[in-house]
Amino acid sequence: MNQYAILHIPDSRYCFACGEKELVLRLRMAKEDEQAEVSLIYACKYDFSLKRRQEKMKICYSDRLFHYYEIRLQLEDVRLAYVFQIEEKGKIYFYSEDGVTETYHFEEGFYNFFQMPYINTNDIMEVVEWMRSAVFYQIFVDRFCQGDFEKDTGYITMQWGETPTPKNFAGGDIKGITEKLDYIKSLGVNAIYLTPVFESLSNHKYDISNYKKIDPQFGTIEDIKELVLKAHKKGMRIVLDAVFNHCSMEMAEFQDVLEKGKQSPYYNWFIIDGEFPDTEKMNYECFAACNYMPKLNTADKGVQDFLIDIALFWIREADIDGWRLDVSDEVSHEFWRRFRREVKAEKRDCVIIGENWHDAYPYLMGDQYDSIMNYAFTKACLDYFAREKFSAKEMAEKLSSNLMRNMEQVNFMMMNLLDSHDTHRFFSEVSKNKDKLLSALALEFIFPGAPCIYYGTEICTEGGYDPDSRRCFDWEEANWDMEVMGIVKELTALRDNPVLQYGSVHIFDEDEMLCVERIWQKRKISLWINLSQKERHIRLAESQMVTCSHMYEKNLQNNGFLIVEEQEG
Amino acid sequence: MNQYAILHIPDSRYCFACGEKELVLRLRMAKEDEQAEVSLIYACKYDFSLKRRQEKMKICYSDRLFHYYEIRLQLEDVRLAYVFQIEEKGKIYFYSEDGVTETYHFEEGFYNFFQMPYINTNDIMEVVEWMRSAVFYQIFVDRFCQGDFEKDTGYITMQWGETPTPKNFAGGDIKGITEKLDYIKSLGVNAIYLTPVFESLSNHKYDISNYKKIDPQFGTIEDIKELVLKAHKKGMRIVLDAVFNHCSMEMAEFQDVLEKGKQSPYYNWFIIDGEFPDTEKMNYECFAACNYMPKLNTADKGVQDFLIDIALFWIREADIDGWRLDVSDEVSHEFWRRFRREVKAEKRDCVIIGENWHDAYPYLMGDQYDSIMNYAFTKACLDYFAREKFSAKEMAEKLSSNLMRNMEQVNFMMMNLLDSHDTHRFFSEVSKNKDKLLSALALEFIFPGAPCIYYGTEICTEGGYDPDSRRCFDWEEANWDMEVMGIVKELTALRDNPVLQYGSVHIFDEDEMLCVERIWQKRKISLWINLSQKERHIRLAESQMVTCSHMYEKNLQNNGFLIVEEQEG
Repeated sequence: MNQYAILHIPDSRYCFACGEKELVLRLRMAKEDEQAEVSLIYACKYDFSLKRRQEKMKICYSDRLFHYYEIRLQLEDVRLAYVFQIEEKGKIYFYSEDGVTETYHFEEGFYNFFQMPYINTNDIMEVVEWMRSAVFYQIFVDRFCQGDFEKDTGYITMQWGETPTPKNFAGGDIKGITEKLDYIKSLGVNAIYLTPVFESLSNHKYDISNYKKIDPQFGTIEDIKELVLKAHKKGMRIVLDAVFNHCSMEMAEFQDVLEKGKQSPYYNWFIIDGEFPDTEKMNYECFAACNYMPKLNTADKGVQDFLIDIALFWIREADIDGWRLDVSDEVSHEFWRRFRREVKAEKRDCVIIGENWHDAYPYLMGDQYDSIMNYAFTKACLDYFAREKFSAKEMAEKLSSNLMRNMEQVNFMMMNLLDSHDTHRFFSEVSKNKDKLLSALALEFIFPGAPCIYYGTEICTEGGYDPDSRRCFDWEEANWDMEVMGIVKELTALRDNPVLQYGSVHIFDEDEMLCVERIWQKRKISLWINLSQKERHIRLAESQMVTCSHMYEKNLQNNGFLIVEEQEG
Repeated sequence: MNQYAILHIPDSRYCFACGEKELVLRLRMAKEDEQAEVSLIYACKYDFSLKRRQEKMKICYSDRLFHYYEIRLQLEDVRLAYVFQIEEKGKIYFYSEDGVTETYHFEEGFYNFFQMPYINTNDIMEVVEWMRSAVFYQIFVDRFCQGDFEKDTGYITMQWGETPTPKNFAGGDIKGITEKLDYIKSLGVNAIYLTPVFESLSNHKYDISNYKKIDPQFGTIEDIKELVLKAHKKGMRIVLDAVFNHCSMEMAEFQDVLEKGKQSPYYNWFIIDGEFPDTEKMNYECFAACNYMPKLNTADKGVQDFLIDIALFWIREADIDGWRLDVSDEVSHEFWRRFRREVKAEKRDCVIIGENWHDAYPYLMGDQYDSIMNYAFTKACLDYFAREKFSAKEMAEKLSSNLMRNMEQVNFMMMNLLDSHDTHRFFSEVSKNKDKLLSALALEFIFPGAPCIYYGTEICTEGGYDPDSRRCFDWEEANWDMEVMGIVKELTALRDNPVLQYGSVHIFDEDEMLCVERIWQKRKISLWINLSQKERHIRLAESQMVTCSHMYEKNLQNNGFLIVEEQEG
């Protein structure tokens, strides 16, 4: 047995409660040991030396090197002690806090069993229920739609549809979004994420000078209230962008420090090496290397109070449904803990989505965010669909590996995306191959979590890296790709299905196709994607029904996908 | 290369800040790969594709299967991106979030490098400075010393020195401890941990009925204030026992629920299945299976307020220096986070020590406790000294493995113990072998963390499991073992040494001896323990000075130890 490969970490993504009496346990083992019989030996921790139960564990996920065994326990007594038993070639091994051993002394288990000492309800990661069926649409506000033609339009520096530059303005605004709510809803979208809307000098508005004021280019507080109200009436939610890592150097508090230095009451709001911040010498912490975006010191109580007040203000004033957190990995854990406490106390189902491009487990343990923008999913899709660096098998392994980073509840809330304002357009990444785009979208919709469509994807908008990924939405319907839009609508319609909202997931390859199965109760949804050059035939049983497909039903040609639903009995 | 063995987890015990610009990184690899060259490639995360540094990593700890490489970085820019490079047999591998690969695309590292995105000062785990040199003495109050003979002594049911039963009372009290402060100090102790002192029906007082009242058997609030004041004057600290997982069924709030059921305002303070708690049916959550110890529901805001108020009350009233948390692993993380925030705001260097017998990393990440009672250390000592299940090599591996469970700062604050009121007496475990007891104590004092001496150890008190481990202290000096006491004093004197307070640690075996080296600046303290039957000679260099030894200097006989100090240049 490969002892090096074995891994279990109690009270972690390897052992977590997902209900008051429900627990999931995972064990990682080398793939080469798949012949071994793996089981869990468990009991109430106070009875561990006396009476124990034993249950077999099954392989649920596999990546390149490892199989992940999983078991779901319904407990009566929520004080759990456990060890793993591994039987291999007639030999029995135990895996406990002391590692792999040939014998195990149950009488002294209190020193070294694994445990979930007690399931305290306030420690359980809760799923924000609406996220189970959410379909997001991300809008870069300046480039989506101009609705207000009475505003001062002097700031607009480009024609609608012109090639974007880093600094030009197209005139998109909140009224424009409100106007297009029916269009957005017609896609099957039920949640909109807006890049920042607060006062700022830039077109992207990630450098905010006044967090309580909607930028006049985008509208007024009344406009955002109206947007949320109308969206809510149509069954759609609105998530705003919280840029709390840094602000604009134009913000009054930073200007005060520029003027008064250490004498300013806001000096400690920033991290400054010296008496005064010096924008030329950059003797203060900034975002990236941008002197106009000074970093906010979230270790400071005043900054915390200021930012929390903003977070609550927009929930109270405009009834928004969530915050997406910009550069959230550079902000302190302690701040996010307070943020979660106060935001959830104000509105329990307000979703908190971090912008962490990496494994974000330390932020996703239940005390900070609910979710992140799943750029690991993005990267896997790039490597599989666009760069063809992955075979179907490697893609299945990569996606499984990513799922093992987090608790199940978090996976259900992930914001899965193919692209955003911070990447190239996925459609351009796949060299404008519509079949690939649609197969990738199909994967995004079948994979656990909430898919997020970057505005324009449905009409095959192209674009390279920033600023080119931020082109104006083309409202000329004659230019739209109705086939792509039609399939997007078929995919969004699937999200109503409880199998996708609650089902387990199994990812594997078969005959060089990527297969994703979701199972819930006696229902199953399966996705096949065929990137190979050869046509594959999917043999359907009588109980199976094709729900959505492309290139083409039952006969999957290159880059095609097929989604099938079936119900047992 | 054994890819299965490789492990690194960013923002964890494998990568943590220990200063505003200082970071420790650890990498786990299979021992069999020790010929490989391991290095860290790192840069500011925004410059990772442009300019990187590379530094070699060294093996610092080894357990049965793995070597742990460690590196300490002093950063200018505290936004770190990194990957590991492993060179083996002329071949180069990279280890990133994507696992081990033969190539690595630095240009796209933002998708998959490891990172410490920013060192936020409020996320750094701080060492409670006095813990670096702390020597604890644990007192089971009823059995240490009776100082008050004017109190109502009707409750006393045993003669001082008689064999303890689970329910008898010997009369020990707080005045008795205050009286013996000089004795305790004479041992070199500078911190005292008292088992609970609040109102309770039992002799151990782990079932508390009034958390704001000192049990009259033990004294008054004035007595505890006097104890703390006098202890502080003598340079000693006092840690009390916080029993917050459960209370006594006698507590007024539980009595109210017994009477009024769901109508009681305290109903949600407990976890009850039904209208009323039923002490016979035990339809409510308890500690273990003790119906007289109902579990407190720390998910309830009222309970949280109640317990936090108690924690702050004793800091304010009596100026205590720390809380030891009973059954802390069964209490919610969310509660401990609030507990830490409020306790540290009240008294920043108030130490928080959990009673977790297992790997407690989820509680020791900086947001909950500072430390735990290190029962994993206890168990290793039992297996090595008492049961002789471990060779010196296995003991070195086990101790190293335990150190890898936590951040360095936490290791400096661990409360290391050989025994307590919840175990057999260690002296009895080693069959009254004084040499073994002393060698184990020597290890406890040289190992990182604060040693804790269970009252009576210094006079070789014997005892089996509870209640036998709770015998009366024998104040008859004629019965004392002065040799053991003398060596205890030599060991406690060592704790002043900065090498033990700040030094790195390296644990290994040599010639069947267990060796622990502590190094700080140019100074080194080494401990050798010889449990083998053969006498070993320790060859000392001229620069080396024996600081403490037993059985005997330079010639280590069976069960002897030797501590040597040296200074370079």
